Amino acid sequence: MDFTFELIKRDSQTTGRVGVMRTPHGEIPTPVFAPVGTQATVKTLSPHELADLGATLILANTYHLYLRPGAEIVAELGGLHRFMGWPGPILTDSGGFQVFSLQDLRRVGDEGVLFRSHLDGSEHFFSPEKVIQIQELLGADIILALDECPDPFDRDYNAAALQRTHRWAERCLAAHTRRDQALFGIVQGGIFPDLRRESARFLASLNFPGYAIGGLSVGESKETMNEMLEITVPLLPEDKPRHLLGVGSPEDLFEGVARGIDIFDCALPTRLARNGTVLTRKGRLNLRNAEFARDARPIEEGCGCYTCQHFSRAYLRHLIKAEEILGLRLSSLHNVYFMVHLMAEIRQSLQDGSFASRREEFLSEYQIVPYEVRRQNKEAWLARRRGSKTA
Amino acid sequence: MDFTFELIKRDSQTTGRVGVMRTPHGEIPTPVFAPVGTQATVKTLSPHELADLGATLILANTYHLYLRPGAEIVAELGGLHRFMGWPGPILTDSGGFQVFSLQDLRRVGDEGVLFRSHLDGSEHFFSPEKVIQIQELLGADIILALDECPDPFDRDYNAAALQRTHRWAERCLAAHTRRDQALFGIVQGGIFPDLRRESARFLASLNFPGYAIGGLSVGESKETMNEMLEITVPLLPEDKPRHLLGVGSPEDLFEGVARGIDIFDCALPTRLARNGTVLTRKGRLNLRNAEFARDARPIEEGCGCYTCQHFSRAYLRHLIKAEEILGLRLSSLHNVYFMVHLMAEIRQSLQDGSFASRREEFLSEYQIVPYEVRRQNKEAWLARRRGSKTA
Repeated sequence: MDFTFELIKRDSQTTGRVGVMRTPHGEIPTPVFAPVGTQATVKTLSPHELADLGATLILANTYHLYLRPGAEIVAELGGLHRFMGWPGPILTDSGGFQVFSLQDLRRVGDEGVLFRSHLDGSEHFFSPEKVIQIQELLGADIILALDECPDPFDRDYNAAALQRTHRWAERCLAAHTRRDQALFGIVQGGIFPDLRRESARFLASLNFPGYAIGGLSVGESKETMNEMLEITVPLLPEDKPRHLLGVGSPEDLFEGVARGIDIFDCALPTRLARNGTVLTRKGRLNLRNAEFARDARPIEEGCGCYTCQHFSRAYLRHLIKAEEILGLRLSSLHNVYFMVHLMAEIRQSLQDGSFASRREEFLSEYQIVPYEVRRQNKEAWLARRRGSKTA
Repeated sequence: MDFTFELIKRDSQTTGRVGVMRTPHGEIPTPVFAPVGTQATVKTLSPHELADLGATLILANTYHLYLRPGAEIVAELGGLHRFMGWPGPILTDSGGFQVFSLQDLRRVGDEGVLFRSHLDGSEHFFSPEKVIQIQELLGADIILALDECPDPFDRDYNAAALQRTHRWAERCLAAHTRRDQALFGIVQGGIFPDLRRESARFLASLNFPGYAIGGLSVGESKETMNEMLEITVPLLPEDKPRHLLGVGSPEDLFEGVARGIDIFDCALPTRLARNGTVLTRKGRLNLRNAEFARDARPIEEGCGCYTCQHFSRAYLRHLIKAEEILGLRLSSLHNVYFMVHLMAEIRQSLQDGSFASRREEFLSEYQIVPYEVRRQNKEAWLARRRGSKTA
């Protein structure tokens, strides 16, 4: 079965829309939030928990799976779906974002990118053809073209990298052979409106079955990100799904949907859980805080997740303080449930015409993490990430 | 409802027996293997997973819960059952074993034991009355008397400690007020037959509703442990359950049951899982080994656990190598299932008269870890344990 995208309804007040992607491993109602399973596991969760909480699409990372356990091993074991026991739709990224985040990046050229593994320092080469071959071995339903991910504020680098990203997009299309996978192109261009326009127009001309928007949420302000979306989205074909890569926070779902985004993915829910932080309609809670020591309430009253149905904030705090894995599990489960269900509500509100008011209501209740705090968190995270990537 | 123990059947060829313990939180068919939930969680597993895999009794540690989150907090939140979301029977130990394993033990006297917390170095005092009070706050169905746990090879220390343990047993009985909890006495005496006999006779005279046997599996050989059981068990009342504390390995279940033990508890299944080791009918497997990299088989063919029903050795190996929590979860789940189901088989074989042949069959297939390796592992573990207990 080939990949299809059906547009079901357009919102009357925003650029938001409801649709459905059909893949060989099932249907994905859009807009959709995809939990991230970097190493063929959404951290701490079992595939059955993901299905139970309503996940319909998960993302796995080509860079990581290529290095460990290796794409051939995954293929030999029946492909990623069978390997990880997740029978539903999977999307793999191209590895571009990971490779370009490496400090030990060796050399970028028109042919591809030479890099060192963060695991053992061994040298590897990703070309457009190579990342398609790897993704064909992994066997995800949706795969991505190789793109170059420059510093979003460096105009000269962005202009040069964009040409390479466009040539690589053409080569990925030419190299792709599996008809049961949908290959999406990636729009780049940093924070530069003219480059974003050029990229969107060029990629649209290549007639991909879907489009990802990359190079955002990497240090620029929310306003800049939203502006880039407003520039990019209208230039992409309306009958193709649009994926905003690596985004985002609860509020980003509303802002992205309002600007025509259909697919989101982010490791935030599981990453926050590892710091003892959980999501609620009013904002984030840090369960390590002493105020929760005797708090018999669930993380959020009315939440239908397994964690909130069975455990108190006091017990979760105890588990987290005692460094018990069940604490990570239950926090991750709640956070992923929160994002998936928030998206389900957004979808429903688009269906019944209440999206704009739902968005306003949510944003009036939800305490957004201030930009400066967020920027520092992001930088600290990127630094740790780079640190852990050097052998 | 008061605690009762009903003896259902005696094995004709061994001292093994089938029974049922009835507690306010449910029935426990015996012999039983109780997974250990030190900090109010069986490491990595949810209470629903424990119920699904057939666990009927779990053990929690008084020492740990007293220090964190504190017994009053657990009581305020409705007691241990509600706190940890496990509605079934719970047993708490007295904290004696943990306190006497501390390197920073301050002073033991007739009144009790003064020690320093491994968490923050703060000073605490456990008396028999105090540990009963703590266990009444925690609210387990079965609780244990405070005992002194000496080096099993030191005769003078054992002789002196035994008198203290016996006085403490009397004081625990006198201090115990909750009629919905069964307080078990603990037989000590190291590796000395006369001391074991004296302890069993004395404690039997106090008419506890059940008896634990402590101070075994702490460095002595399997032969010595079995000899101590053969000396101790016949002196305990036949109509009371007998708990062999902190034991054991799969083969120990057969050896203990054959000598009249009804209750076992051990952290081994979850501890092994943290090292990437899983249990099979043929012995242990270390999933880190390269031979499993492309192994599409489950841990054990025919195993009914969630892990074996859904995942390959290759995937588990990948998760463990990649340090993913799901690897710990799935390995722990399999190992606990293995022990609980092995005990269910033992119980069934006692019922249908095939225990002796089932025991022979198991021991002929199961590769036991050699004594010397086991002793070294145990010492390394005790050393790490002591290390982690000093602030």
